[in-house]
Amino acid sequence: MNVNFINPFLQSLLNVISTMASMDLTPGKPQIKSDNLAKGDVSGLIGLVGPQTKGSLSITFEQKLVLQIMQNMLGENPGKINEEVTDLVGEITNMVTGGAKNLLGQKGYEFEMATPMVVSGKGHTISHKANGTKIIMPFTSPHGTAYIEICFEN
Amino acid sequence: MNVNFINPFLQSLLNVISTMASMDLTPGKPQIKSDNLAKGDVSGLIGLVGPQTKGSLSITFEQKLVLQIMQNMLGENPGKINEEVTDLVGEITNMVTGGAKNLLGQKGYEFEMATPMVVSGKGHTISHKANGTKIIMPFTSPHGTAYIEICFEN
Repeated sequence: MNVNFINPFLQSLLNVISTMASMDLTPGKPQIKSDNLAKGDVSGLIGLVGPQTKGSLSITFEQKLVLQIMQNMLGENPGKINEEVTDLVGEITNMVTGGAKNLLGQKGYEFEMATPMVVSGKGHTISHKANGTKIIMPFTSPHGTAYIEICFEN
Repeated sequence: MNVNFINPFLQSLLNVISTMASMDLTPGKPQIKSDNLAKGDVSGLIGLVGPQTKGSLSITFEQKLVLQIMQNMLGENPGKINEEVTDLVGEITNMVTGGAKNLLGQKGYEFEMATPMVVSGKGHTISHKANGTKIIMPFTSPHGTAYIEICFEN
């Protein structure tokens, strides 16, 4: 996978969380994912289809972090992952991917987004099954950790 | 969502499991999904993008059922959900969606598939966040239950 593909997703997540939740996440170093899976409690997932490539993206949050994001954005904290939280994670997934799509479109990389799905379940893991390099980026905060994982074929 | 969209996915799952694992699943009644979420232990998810619509599909298995499918297909049963099992679930998701894509293409409904993702985690649930009707179809067997969920916009 072209390294130009990665930074727009990183930038877009930082922008979305900063703008919507007034929270600064600290990006860690992007890594080629081997068998170390990101564990989290709620994840937004979306499929990507372009003329030359296809792939998938996920954003995984620890419960405490996503609840703090919700508190900051909406002024309420349900104390657990309910449908309002999964709706929010779906929206964040759409916004982050849409932001990256715009940045990548300016560089000539085009893809269409499918619709987001949200998984909830304590400590689940996600495997991206495209035949391509898988990149995982951790983001830390005092409230917990989030991960973006991206995989594009070719 | 057009009801013509549903049966090809149902048929395709029955075909794939019958052909590959010599197992007959019993389809239950497709239902419009409200807030009753399918719970399972491993799920394959894939995004769908067409000229007029986009959406998402998931196939969720209980652990005992997916391990029996693996036993029947490959003659081995790891006793837990490991990377071989998630690879298999990714393959099944691709095959089922590809089979339905062929059947739907013959009726003039075209879409492209993104690449599959596989979630593992005891008792997780999936919410499809497209703005459209969500259909859930249960499939039962003596070894446990599987669910297909599909959502298309428009």
